[in-house]
This record gives sequence, C-alpha cells and structure tokens, in this order.
Amino acid sequence: MSEREKTDRTRRRFLTTSLAALGGAAATPALSGEKPDPAITEVQPWRRHLGPGVDASPYGLPSPFEAQVRRRNVPWLTADTRSSINFTPLHQIDGIITPNGLCFERHHSGVAEIDPSRHRLMINGLVEQPLVFTLEDIRRFPRENRIYFMECTANTGMEWHGPQMNGVQFTHGMIHNVMYTGVPLRLILQEAGIKASAKWLLAEGGDAAAMTRSIPLEKALDDCMVAFAQNGEALRPENGYPLRLLVPGWEGNMWIKWLRRLELGDKPWMQREETSKYTDLMPDGTARQFTWVMDAKSVITSPSPQAPITHGKGPLVITGLAWSGHGIISKVDVTLDGGRNWTEARIDGPRLPKSLHRFYLEIDWDGRPMLLQSRAMDETGYVQPTMKALKAIRGENSVYHNNGIQTWHVRENGEVENVEVS
Amino acid sequence: MSEREKTDRTRRRFLTTSLAALGGAAATPALSGEKPDPAITEVQPWRRHLGPGVDASPYGLPSPFEAQVRRRNVPWLTADTRSSINFTPLHQIDGIITPNGLCFERHHSGVAEIDPSRHRLMINGLVEQPLVFTLEDIRRFPRENRIYFMECTANTGMEWHGPQMNGVQFTHGMIHNVMYTGVPLRLILQEAGIKASAKWLLAEGGDAAAMTRSIPLEKALDDCMVAFAQNGEALRPENGYPLRLLVPGWEGNMWIKWLRRLELGDKPWMQREETSKYTDLMPDGTARQFTWVMDAKSVITSPSPQAPITHGKGPLVITGLAWSGHGIISKVDVTLDGGRNWTEARIDGPRLPKSLHRFYLEIDWDGRPMLLQSRAMDETGYVQPTMKALKAIRGENSVYHNNGIQTWHVRENGEVENVEVS
Repeated sequence: MSEREKTDRTRRRFLTTSLAALGGAAATPALSGEKPDPAITEVQPWRRHLGPGVDASPYGLPSPFEAQVRRRNVPWLTADTRSSINFTPLHQIDGIITPNGLCFERHHSGVAEIDPSRHRLMINGLVEQPLVFTLEDIRRFPRENRIYFMECTANTGMEWHGPQMNGVQFTHGMIHNVMYTGVPLRLILQEAGIKASAKWLLAEGGDAAAMTRSIPLEKALDDCMVAFAQNGEALRPENGYPLRLLVPGWEGNMWIKWLRRLELGDKPWMQREETSKYTDLMPDGTARQFTWVMDAKSVITSPSPQAPITHGKGPLVITGLAWSGHGIISKVDVTLDGGRNWTEARIDGPRLPKSLHRFYLEIDWDGRPMLLQSRAMDETGYVQPTMKALKAIRGENSVYHNNGIQTWHVRENGEVENVEVS
Repeated sequence: MSEREKTDRTRRRFLTTSLAALGGAAATPALSGEKPDPAITEVQPWRRHLGPGVDASPYGLPSPFEAQVRRRNVPWLTADTRSSINFTPLHQIDGIITPNGLCFERHHSGVAEIDPSRHRLMINGLVEQPLVFTLEDIRRFPRENRIYFMECTANTGMEWHGPQMNGVQFTHGMIHNVMYTGVPLRLILQEAGIKASAKWLLAEGGDAAAMTRSIPLEKALDDCMVAFAQNGEALRPENGYPLRLLVPGWEGNMWIKWLRRLELGDKPWMQREETSKYTDLMPDGTARQFTWVMDAKSVITSPSPQAPITHGKGPLVITGLAWSGHGIISKVDVTLDGGRNWTEARIDGPRLPKSLHRFYLEIDWDGRPMLLQSRAMDETGYVQPTMKALKAIRGENSVYHNNGIQTWHVRENGEVENVEVS
C-alpha cells in the first residue's frame, strides 16, 4: 500500500466517524455570519503595511511568536550549568529533523568555543604514520551524508524510580536527529595505516574536560564518521564545532565533540566515562560495562504533559517518535487504554536506519480519560519493553539505558500527566 | 552496489593516484618535528577554561567564526529590498538539507509578520460548504513529512544573456530544500466538499501583496500540501509562517506563503503573476503560459567562484546539487574539460523525488585549468540541456526556467570564474 493510500485510508475512517465534530467544533463555516470572526472581517496589519525586506536577516530566526519553543535546562538537576544538560522540546517539533537551534546539549566543561583555524585532528598510536589534519585536509576526503539520531544514554534516566519529570522534553528530550555531512572514519584511519595489532580506538575531545572514550575498532571501521556539518551548515558550537565523531546507534557520550585526537590501541583505555560513569549497575551489585547500543524505544510527543489537548473531543492527532540503534523501526503500536488494546500507528516520512521515525495515529477522541503508550519494534524483531519487564531484569539501580514504555494519562479536560502503569 | 562500496571504490582510486599528495601536501606527519604546529604544541584557551553552560543559548546559533555563512542580497538587482530576493549560500553548505536560517527569500511586499492567533485559512468558491480554519484546526488533520526543493523560477534568470553573476549563490541560490510537515491539500479541500464543476484552485497569501496564483485542481489533489513546519520547527516568517502552500516540483512563485485563502473555480484567474510575470517570452514574440514544472537541473557548488581551491593540486572533492520537478535524479555526470569527457558522479544521501540530490566526484587535480560542468538526468530520461541547446529553442528573451548547464573555469591558482562555453 502506498504512503498516500495509508493516509487516505486513515482519512476515510476519520471522516466517517467525525465529520460532524470537525465541521462543527473544529472548523467554522465561513459564511454562517453568526459570530463574525475579526481575523476574517478585519484587515490585519500585515496586509496593510510592507514588512521587512530581504536585507533584514542575513541569518534567519524563528518568529517572535515562537519564543517559547526552546531548549530548557532543569536547574536542580546539576550543580553547575557547565556540566549539565538542556533538552530538545520534542513536544513542539514535528517530522524527523531536529532544527539546529533546538538540538539538546550535554557538556562536561561547558561549550568549547573553538577557532577552526587553530583546530587540528591528530591520529596516533598503533598506526604506520601518525598524522595531523587541518579542517581543510578533512574536506579533501570523500564525504557522506547520513541522518542519525544521537541519544544521551541517560535519556529517561530520571524515570527509573517512577514518574519524575512532567514533560516529554524532560523525560525523552536528550535526543536529536540531523543530517550530518562528514568523512567515513575508516578512510581517515586507513590514511594513517592501521597496524594489525590495533583493536581499539580512543577518541578525545578538545574541551576542557578532554572527554575521552574507547571504541572497538570493528565499529570504528563500520559506520562511524567524522562530521563537520549538521543539516547542511557547520556543526553548532554546542554540538561539537568544528569536528564531531559520530557513532551511529550507540550512546551519545561516545560521539566525541570538538574531536581533536584519535589513538589506536590494543585494549580499551578504561577512562572515567566507561568505568565510573556510563555503566549499568545491576540488582546484584555488579555493573555491566560497554553497553553501547541504544535499544529500540519510542514515545508519544503529543498529546503529552507540555502539549495538552486544548480543542476538546473529536479528531485528535496522536504523534510521536521511535528509534533503534540496531537499524530501522518496522512497526509502532499505540494504546489508548494502558496496554489492553493496541493499534498500529502510521509511520510517515523517510524510514532510515538509526534515525528517528515519526508516527501518527488519528483518532476520534470521545473525551474520556486515556492511558497513552507507544511501543516500537525494530527490524531485528526486538520489541520495546514495559517498565515492569525492564525493571525485572535491570532492577532500579540504573541511570542509563532506560528504553521502557512511557505512559501518559490524559484527563477529560485534556491535561496530561506522566504516570506509570503496573 | 551498496553506498559503502561506492565510497570505498572511489577511495581506492583516490589512494592509488594520490597517496603521496595527501600524505605530503595535505596532512602533516604528526611527529616529524620539523616545524612544530602551535595548534598541537600549545594548549588552546578552550582546553584551559570552562566554556558557556547549557543555559547560555535556549535557541542555538552558529559559531561566530561562521558569520560569513549567510544569505546575500544584490542591491542593484531590485529597486526596493521589500520586493526583492536574497540567496542561499550554496557554496558554503553541504548535504541536502538547507538549514532554516539560510533558506533564500523572495518577497513582493516584505515579510508578513503574522500573529498566528489572528491568522485564518478560508476555503471558498465551488465547494459544498465554505470553511474557515484556525491553525489548531489544521493540526487536527492527518500530517505528512516530505523533503522538497523549492526553486524560484527566476533562478539562474540573470544568466540568459551570458555569465552575469560570479558565484553559485547568485546564479543558483534561489533554491532551498527542507523537510516540511503539513496536511495534504486534498484532505482540506475534501473537508469543504469539492463541487463537480471545480477545475482550478486559487491560492492567496496574507501579505500586503496578496500574492495569488491559479493551480489546476489535478495538481492540488495530487501532492500539494499545506505546511506549518520546516525542518521540524514552525515555518520561518520569511518562508510563510504560519502556513505555506507546497506545490512540489513546480515553480516557487506558486508556493503561496502566509496562506490565507483557497478558492475553487472552473477556470484560471489570470492574475498578474501568471500573465504579466512568470510566462516565457519566446523568440517569435509569443509567450508560453503555465510552464509550471521545474525541469532537471544541476550545478557544481564547490569549487565555484565563491569557493576557490585553496589547497593546491592533489585530492580535490568536486561537489554539487541536482534536482528535478519530475521526480528522482537517476544520474549526474561531471566534466573537467567543458564537455569533451564525462564521468559519472557519486550521488550520496537520500534520493527522494522532487528533492535536492547531493553529488560528489573525487579527483586528483593536476593543477591545470578546468572547465567544470555537471549534467543531470532524471527518472523520465530527460537530460539537462547545454545553454546553447536551450537558447536554440527559447531564444534570449526569457527570464524564467533557465536550467542550462553551468560552466566554471578553474584557473591554475585555484580561482574560479563563471564562463559560458559555446
């Protein structure tokens, strides 16, 4: 069935059940004359006066009426904003591309404000010839363009102990999805010559934290990239300008920003960020290390606590995001009743591996409370677990890798709350 | 052959011909010690001091070092900047997504600065029930996400009389390519009920120019959309906030911004913008009307006059864009010698219908002058014409629909000039 047939099939069902509601409550018959709408009967100022010209904004910005669409910090979460997080406003955006201005940030020593002319990328360790590249050198390698999600492994981490954060921006907003342009990492490593004894790669950032992670060489030679652009333009300073390592499908902490050094070695370096942090403490007190892949996950972005239903009953668009570090999302199901009945959602837009997928379910809301959940399945057949199933294995000592099913409780008045169903 | 095999095949050829050049001229052996690079031997300030925290930029912006990456106006081109154009910096961006801040603008009465709470979309004319929608109403319809190019039909229009504008930003920069989110137009029209006598659609903008165009109903019911988001966030004011009509593959002037009214009728309205303007004056003095589709076209974005070769001979990435209003680009060829010999370029990234395609050709530049051209072929088998072939049919009276092959003359010193080959 074509994409269009799917949309239209949805639409036919929609019309059958709710034409009255949409024709009445939602859309206003234009010529009824009952209550003249000043937005129609009056000439608005922007139709009377010439607006700003093309020299007004060499670099364009959102409308002032969109000022509330922004990244948000949670002050009590960290002691200092320079080793902290802000969150992508998932409830306010649509499609699968995150605009560059709204990509969440996570720093350990604040944003490194790098002069690109003074930035270098060094390759050393178990290589035939250590090399140092300028940015111009990097641009002389063959390039690729790929859309990938980048998720902090602590995303949804506050929810291990039950509902904490009342908004999808805060429960799931440590993720973004952009089109990167860059060079396959294997080409850069091959340029230096990989010694046979090399099994691991160390990537080091140019910030004051010198963020450093070990990556198996097999992954480095697979789909990793050294990127210089996001959504067409140079990386943003807070996302790694001028160079970032991409580790598609793997936890965001490994995507070293402000990339300055790549070292090849024969074993992992056991850095702070792969021992003390970014491991998973199990119920028996042992810790799982090197749990890199981000498993299949999904969440409904609207309605959600920050995006309540304001139009009353009738036609309602339920929408959300699904993703998997293992590849493509094959299916997303949505339930309105906390998991008793599931309906397959419509995935719309490009379905790309290790990228966000956008899903929609159009319903005719009867105005009664709902327990909304979404459940993703990826191309390996893996199904996103319930929080209960996840905790049965992982316990409640964890911070990272929470990909459990999220529940939103929609009230009769359209307000939405973060809840957990047992 | 997979995308990876294509890249690697390119790379193998690249290595065979130019390892010495890249290992020598381009990348610096790290430990030679001959001329210590202060970027390596000194600790840069951003490694010594904590940078700004996550509350510093609720809406992120490019690095100050990228201030020269911007839309540019050409003051002499129009009498007033409020009925004018600025241009996308194609030479400074990569991939296929145009970041929202860099999408070119073309206005007839400046930017309409609309308060979304006071904006309505009216449907009238040959419909069963005229309707007026608020923005909230529009968001209750099923949504789609599509990446489409939007090209002003006057793009490259200054070049009909030979090379005029010395930069791809100015010769080809009236184009952008974003992911839109919106509602299929047919669903909105069907909501009002389309009368059997309706054959045409009139779309009207909410700016002071009340930009208005006629569109055949067949196209309106095909792939047109009413969009409210670009690259995930709300449309930018200069690109039609809060609602824009999308007419995929067709000339940009029809993509009515600030969309306020849709009227169904039984014949075209013969508005100024489809009679006095946006027609093609032929050599015999007659004018072609309703030449809506943007035919297959391509251009090399780097090297180009604004993006000269600064690294001397050796490995060189030639890159550019190709697109067609008829669908997918099947092939792009590149010539280094003004059309004598052609090599198939590598198209990388998603290949989507009526979207920009990014192509690359990696060569080992011998430092001698080149006459660079690209030539696109679309899925219908149509091949982008030479300027000579185009003029043989269209003459030189035209302003619009110039999709001829562009030539860049690369000099030995790496500088690039806009030329025409006969």
